[in-house]
Amino acid sequence: MKLYDLPGPPSPRRIRIFLAEKGVEIETVAVNIREGEHMQDAFAAKNNRRTIPALELDNGTVLTESDAILRYLEEKFPEPPLYGMTPEERAVVNDWLHIIDVDGFCAVADALRNSNPRFENRALTGARDIPQIPELAERGAKRIDYFFEDLEVQLDGKAYVAGDRYTVADICALVVVDFAGMAKKDIPDNCPNVKRWHEDVSARPSAKA
Amino acid sequence: MKLYDLPGPPSPRRIRIFLAEKGVEIETVAVNIREGEHMQDAFAAKNNRRTIPALELDNGTVLTESDAILRYLEEKFPEPPLYGMTPEERAVVNDWLHIIDVDGFCAVADALRNSNPRFENRALTGARDIPQIPELAERGAKRIDYFFEDLEVQLDGKAYVAGDRYTVADICALVVVDFAGMAKKDIPDNCPNVKRWHEDVSARPSAKA
Repeated sequence: MKLYDLPGPPSPRRIRIFLAEKGVEIETVAVNIREGEHMQDAFAAKNNRRTIPALELDNGTVLTESDAILRYLEEKFPEPPLYGMTPEERAVVNDWLHIIDVDGFCAVADALRNSNPRFENRALTGARDIPQIPELAERGAKRIDYFFEDLEVQLDGKAYVAGDRYTVADICALVVVDFAGMAKKDIPDNCPNVKRWHEDVSARPSAKA
Repeated sequence: MKLYDLPGPPSPRRIRIFLAEKGVEIETVAVNIREGEHMQDAFAAKNNRRTIPALELDNGTVLTESDAILRYLEEKFPEPPLYGMTPEERAVVNDWLHIIDVDGFCAVADALRNSNPRFENRALTGARDIPQIPELAERGAKRIDYFFEDLEVQLDGKAYVAGDRYTVADICALVVVDFAGMAKKDIPDNCPNVKRWHEDVSARPSAKA
């Protein structure tokens, strides 16, 4: 398999942290997005959605969604398990993965991509132009606050997002919290659990990936 | 386990179709959303997100995200498998589940919830008021067109969304296409593959669930 990667943005970082936690290295191709390589025919032939990361499997299938890439890597490299050890643990991990994606990741992306001139007509990733909606940036910023509130409650009395074990939910939440920083939203002072957890997961060597 | 259910909206329907395909019945509680039961304390104590469906596990955990509920049910009732038979099949199913969720479901929800007066201050599900953004309704309607275009390409030469086997991706895509109808967006005439597939999956007994 072959990973199409890019330093900087949050989505490919999820994959790199995950692989670092597994202690696995796979073939990686850096895509030069500043020179628009993701919009050119050669990359579009691999991934018509023009998004990064993408994972090309040995059978030629190209996965374009981080969620699918992470689940595939979990199957191929099961140790250590990062999706929980029992059906009930996996259920909580999956519940929070969706909450982190919709309430966290999408909120930050809305806030950033609908306000920063760098994302003019790029309010969503993908092949098509999507104009910015300033009101959506404001809504995104407010929803980031809500996400911090909810994460604070979830982390109360827990070492990690899904309980007492580090999982892929921590990876995705870490990436969202750092992504929020790019939208100038730091962890609020009234979220001590989030601060404690963020320090802890950021100190793992994988966080530098 | 116990399912909190509601006839009408798309998300609980996904769960009912899934259970019908498994040939499984579980304990179900109907939540009366018209009388605001989901906003009252008794339900909030179970699910603070106030969303339906929710699945209460035997250990007391309450899952609030359809994606997590479906994956848990797949583990508990593995036959027939609805997430693919091999890692590569599962990868395509997972890739499309995310595409259907973000490009399909969220687009229809944006179109509907940001325009219909019935959803005033309910532009997103959940415990908090979220004001409507009319421009987001317009963007949602355009993105539904894009979703149909992409689904048309995906279904070219394939019986089902993820290949030659019916999977949970068909369930989620069926529910999104019917949800689009609620936003007055029918399958466009230039999408014969989607029409053929939609007729096929709608004819399964599970589609009535």
